[in-house]
Amino acid sequence: MDRTAATRKILDAKLRLKLTWADIAQSIGRSEVWTTAACLGQATCSQDDIKKLAEIMDLPKEELEILATVPYRGRSEVIPQDPTIYRLYEILLVYGDTIKELIHEKFGDGIMSAIDFTMDIDKKTDPAGDRVVVTMNGKFLPYKKW
Amino acid sequence: MDRTAATRKILDAKLRLKLTWADIAQSIGRSEVWTTAACLGQATCSQDDIKKLAEIMDLPKEELEILATVPYRGRSEVIPQDPTIYRLYEILLVYGDTIKELIHEKFGDGIMSAIDFTMDIDKKTDPAGDRVVVTMNGKFLPYKKW
Amino acid sequence: MDRTAATRKILDAKLRLKLTWADIAQSIGRSEVWTTAACLGQATCSQDDIKKLAEIMDLPKEELEILATVPYRGRSEVIPQDPTIYRLYEILLVYGDTIKELIHEKFGDGIMSAIDFTMDIDKKTDPAGDRVVVTMNGKFLPYKKW
Amino acid sequence: MDRTAATRKILDAKLRLKLTWADIAQSIGRSEVWTTAACLGQATCSQDDIKKLAEIMDLPKEELEILATVPYRGRSEVIPQDPTIYRLYEILLVYGDTIKELIHEKFGDGIMSAIDFTMDIDKKTDPAGDRVVVTMNGKFLPYKKW
Amino acid sequence: MDRTAATRKILDAKLRLKLTWADIAQSIGRSEVWTTAACLGQATCSQDDIKKLAEIMDLPKEELEILATVPYRGRSEVIPQDPTIYRLYEILLVYGDTIKELIHEKFGDGIMSAIDFTMDIDKKTDPAGDRVVVTMNGKFLPYKKW
Amino acid sequence: MDRTAATRKILDAKLRLKLTWADIAQSIGRSEVWTTAACLGQATCSQDDIKKLAEIMDLPKEELEILATVPYRGRSEVIPQDPTIYRLYEILLVYGDTIKELIHEKFGDGIMSAIDFTMDIDKKTDPAGDRVVVTMNGKFLPYKKW
Amino acid sequence: MDRTAATRKILDAKLRLKLTWADIAQSIGRSEVWTTAACLGQATCSQDDIKKLAEIMDLPKEELEILATVPYRGRSEVIPQDPTIYRLYEILLVYGDTIKELIHEKFGDGIMSAIDFTMDIDKKTDPAGDRVVVTMNGKFLPYKKW
Amino acid sequence: MDRTAATRKILDAKLRLKLTWADIAQSIGRSEVWTTAACLGQATCSQDDIKKLAEIMDLPKEELEILATVPYRGRSEVIPQDPTIYRLYEILLVYGDTIKELIHEKFGDGIMSAIDFTMDIDKKTDPAGDRVVVTMNGKFLPYKKW
Amino acid sequence: MDRTAATRKILDAKLRLKLTWADIAQSIGRSEVWTTAACLGQATCSQDDIKKLAEIMDLPKEELEILATVPYRGRSEVIPQDPTIYRLYEILLVYGDTIKELIHEKFGDGIMSAIDFTMDIDKKTDPAGDRVVVTMNGKFLPYKKW
Amino acid sequence: MDRTAATRKILDAKLRLKLTWADIAQSIGRSEVWTTAACLGQATCSQDDIKKLAEIMDLPKEELEILATVPYRGRSEVIPQDPTIYRLYEILLVYGDTIKELIHEKFGDGIMSAIDFTMDIDKKTDPAGDRVVVTMNGKFLPYKKW
Repeated sequence: MDRTAATRKILDAKLRLKLTWADIAQSIGRSEVWTTAACLGQATCSQDDIKKLAEIMDLPKEELEILATVPYRGRSEVIPQDPTIYRLYEILLVYGDTIKELIHEKFGDGIMSAIDFTMDIDKKTDPAGDRVVVTMNGKFLPYKKW
Repeated sequence: MDRTAATRKILDAKLRLKLTWADIAQSIGRSEVWTTAACLGQATCSQDDIKKLAEIMDLPKEELEILATVPYRGRSEVIPQDPTIYRLYEILLVYGDTIKELIHEKFGDGIMSAIDFTMDIDKKTDPAGDRVVVTMNGKFLPYKKW
Repeated sequence: MDRTAATRKILDAKLRLKLTWADIAQSIGRSEVWTTAACLGQATCSQDDIKKLAEIMDLPKEELEILATVPYRGRSEVIPQDPTIYRLYEILLVYGDTIKELIHEKFGDGIMSAIDFTMDIDKKTDPAGDRVVVTMNGKFLPYKKW
Repeated sequence: MDRTAATRKILDAKLRLKLTWADIAQSIGRSEVWTTAACLGQATCSQDDIKKLAEIMDLPKEELEILATVPYRGRSEVIPQDPTIYRLYEILLVYGDTIKELIHEKFGDGIMSAIDFTMDIDKKTDPAGDRVVVTMNGKFLPYKKW
Repeated sequence: MDRTAATRKILDAKLRLKLTWADIAQSIGRSEVWTTAACLGQATCSQDDIKKLAEIMDLPKEELEILATVPYRGRSEVIPQDPTIYRLYEILLVYGDTIKELIHEKFGDGIMSAIDFTMDIDKKTDPAGDRVVVTMNGKFLPYKKW
Repeated sequence: MDRTAATRKILDAKLRLKLTWADIAQSIGRSEVWTTAACLGQATCSQDDIKKLAEIMDLPKEELEILATVPYRGRSEVIPQDPTIYRLYEILLVYGDTIKELIHEKFGDGIMSAIDFTMDIDKKTDPAGDRVVVTMNGKFLPYKKW
Repeated sequence: MDRTAATRKILDAKLRLKLTWADIAQSIGRSEVWTTAACLGQATCSQDDIKKLAEIMDLPKEELEILATVPYRGRSEVIPQDPTIYRLYEILLVYGDTIKELIHEKFGDGIMSAIDFTMDIDKKTDPAGDRVVVTMNGKFLPYKKW
Repeated sequence: MDRTAATRKILDAKLRLKLTWADIAQSIGRSEVWTTAACLGQATCSQDDIKKLAEIMDLPKEELEILATVPYRGRSEVIPQDPTIYRLYEILLVYGDTIKELIHEKFGDGIMSAIDFTMDIDKKTDPAGDRVVVTMNGKFLPYKKW
Repeated sequence: MDRTAATRKILDAKLRLKLTWADIAQSIGRSEVWTTAACLGQATCSQDDIKKLAEIMDLPKEELEILATVPYRGRSEVIPQDPTIYRLYEILLVYGDTIKELIHEKFGDGIMSAIDFTMDIDKKTDPAGDRVVVTMNGKFLPYKKW
Repeated sequence: MDRTAATRKILDAKLRLKLTWADIAQSIGRSEVWTTAACLGQATCSQDDIKKLAEIMDLPKEELEILATVPYRGRSEVIPQDPTIYRLYEILLVYGDTIKELIHEKFGDGIMSAIDFTMDIDKKTDPAGDRVVVTMNGKFLPYKKW
């Protein structure tokens, strides 16, 4: 049983049944971002999540069992090539130091957690061209002194 | 005349005069993120921006003249090491494919522009620990077929 | 169903039926560059494109269905080795800064879009040796200030 | 005498005298692209080019003498970070194989020379947003069999 | 004013005055690990820390002022070469997956924080050869679902 | 017979029989860390270890025979991506020089062995959030002069 | 039909029939270097070449058909490890700048073509030890000015 | 006294005195390739070589003394960017395996030495365009069995 | 017929028949180091070697036939991760320049051949802990001047 | 006070006074390898070593004081380019797995220490060409089980 195989089954089922990530997210009662990440093998599902995923995708529950184990998170590329994903990397190159400066100015020495963290992707319609809005929300963690 | 030297002068003046990025942003009438990025050499200033920056920082305007040229944007590291900046890279590793999936589901084939783009960094107080909120807002650009 | 498999089927059919990219482009009513890119898995086809591709290549439409999903774009090599492709990389090394300087001189701070973008490859006959003409045409996107 | 120093002097003079690359190109009677590349240290100038460059830039001819030697061409980054330059790299990632396929279809096995090569950067005004047009023109070189 | 220069002054003073890290740590009332990290430019000092550091090192307080700003953390090498530091990297290569398995078994899906984190380095004498004991203590942060 | 296959069989059996690493460690009378490392292919088992592992996992002893050979230790990634493992790498980036300084101060010139080495992973409950405690214990090896 | 498979068939046939590269080259009436390169998938064969290769190797012509398409040239390693090949890379490291200097001194600014290019590998017997003689012969291509 | 400084002095003198590498080679009675390599810091000169180099270049002999020590050979780039030098790397990518095959066929298992090695760069005039001829001549070294 | 497959067969036979490398070396009358290297695919066997290897390993001679061809030597990792192999790399990092200095002092400008080369691995018992003795013996090759 | 500067002073003095490493080693009563490594900044000297080094090199003792601190060991290159040093890396590529196999066969699971380690470089005269003999002698460290 292997996580990549489970992800492939989910993507095939999604295509075959013409499901959207929004449909799938609704079926398990979680956000679109978390649900998509979990289906792509980047989060840990509960047994209940798996049961509901198996139902909406018309797959045997056993084939998704691996989703209940903790994944090895990450991507195979060090620098993303796909342009949609690369733009996030470019934002990091151009604005990374700026984000650091402003987090420290507003919060002190520490980081925005990527673990105690939520994200949303929204569409804002605009006559000059619709806009993608990515909202990242992470707990500030101050550096400990000891 | 060299951009790194200009940035160093700005950072020294900021420290000496105990200015915040918020102060500096206000003085030129722009957002904190754009202002910080410009001072760190990642954006192009107008002559008017430079004049105001020189004033608030008590620097000769000529020393900031280089900020009116278009910069070579980027950072020296391919993978950031500083933990505050690394967390953004980690988000890309864990959620990059998810963001791609959801942008395509909501908008079709294309990207979130990193050029026709704005960003905000906000502090949301929370009794369980304050939260950093990063809002990225970029125009959706559909892939052209021809 | 997997994109690489679809591309391989297309290349095999092209060879078997002695089709040119020009033939294929004509059959779907699109440019040679876009058509080739789509067949190599670098663009998203409409259902209509797929129907026509299946016809000219004498393949079952289902085997090309994957071409209607948005691809992960890119190549496996960071620096291309094949000499025909490497020459484009070499042009970037030698003339990249020049292109940047002239785009900024003519348009201001911003980029040539690689998304709202078209390209043509033409043959210009010349007694001293025929010439390859690559024409790239991308929308200028000015950097936003906010 | 060092090429980087000569380039810096040229860029400083250009800024001080408010010259454009178009002005400089005109003064030596060459294209904008070649002239810019030469000033950035990516081409070899004749003594006549140097004399004219020194004149328009009001610099002693000796300070530009190094431009008459053959340069070590290239850039310091393997993958460009600056977004304006990166887009050319992205085009290579997305369309590199396509360009290879079409050159071979139109010309046979060989390459577009990057040496017997010219390039133009043009502005095409467009009510929907002006467009950058990059035209590359290189001699086709067929692979020799022996 | 530059962090590397401050670090060099501290190291020179330490050598000149024959101070140990233990002496320095005691003088500011903090642990050896945190104190050493701060002096090497990997932590943020309070004004009080700086005052005490300046005293024990017989340096003007202004020369250490930079230590009150938040540092860019990290090392210049991606893979450490120095054998003493490399052994930590080797432990990560050999036992990294094991640590991940056991953290998840004992705590669930999440990480050991490297921010809400303390570390101690101790010497345990042993007739068969003294032993280095490194104790890392980080808050467990569970992955959020949303 | 191949080590990766043996590891996969162990992981499948562990999941199927709902065993913990603690259970497995107990069955062979060794520590959790060593046992997990051995099962993941990072240590050499005795015939006795293999016999007991085969029993608790209800696998034929022959399928684990490869565990008695000395493994090629390591991980496929140069820089770990998984956040749980990355935090150890980040500790090395931030505190690596500090660890070196303090080992030398307490022991002289030499290293903490990663071979004559033990490690424990413990859970320390804490009302403010449980803590992961990693204790590394390695023999100090002084550099030889000759 | 895949080039690697065709190469493997050729190498197997060569071994089985105890053919030398010299034999194979003679059979198609081309040089040893070009013939070997073509069989290893680094050149494009004519239909006539393929017919003759199939004959001497006693293989069905269809299995070599792929050799008539233009290959993706290159090797999988960025720096060669095999010592016989590495020595060529070492020559480049030690004498690369020298070759550049002398090409420019003798020909002016330009390159030795690797496309309009032939190479020979010869054995020169010598009582002090036989010598390998590699002769590279490429057209000089002058850099164009425009 | 530092090798880079000596090389720079030589290059400056060569430019000032309008010497060619051929002139310099003749003055010390060695080949152009070896002489150029030595002047660029890639070979060891005898005291006699240094004396003659100092004479022809009108430099104090002491300034070239460092050329009598054994250099650290190599270039700063792993993959050369300059097109004139890159073509040699490309030849290695395209023909490296071919060279290996033919050396083994003609000589058995072993290498062409890059130490007991000479090279010549010649110009062969040709009405269809002059040709660069690079002749490498290295002793064959058979792999020892023991 | 593929070298990796042959190596795997040898390793399986060695394990099944409980042979040591010493046994195998003795059976073919060669050193342990050369024999092991040959079995791991890093040297070329004679027909006689292969016949004896096939005998002692009770394998059909044909399955080892590939060992008579010249191998592509090398390892897949640029920097070894396995600690036993890494220590050799570390020796190179720490003592590489020293070895160079002393070879040049004792022999002049040149190298220790890795081709006309033998190596032995010995065990030296020692009450304070047994010692590994690696003896490398390579012909000195002086750099040629021409 | 900086280690690179101290090394440069030593190398200059060695050249000026025409000392050999053998002379220097003798003056401090240590082996040539250790002495050279220490002078190149790869080992820690005692006060007595420094005193003797200062004497033989006719340098003020203070200028060598830094040699008494523990160095950051290593080289700047990941893969050595200099041919004399590269051969050691090549030995690792070709014989690394062999060394691992034989250490394990003779000693069990463990490593040859690079810390409790000595090395000698000797010249063995031979009518067929003198030979470099490198003898590495490191304590075997068995992997601990716990």
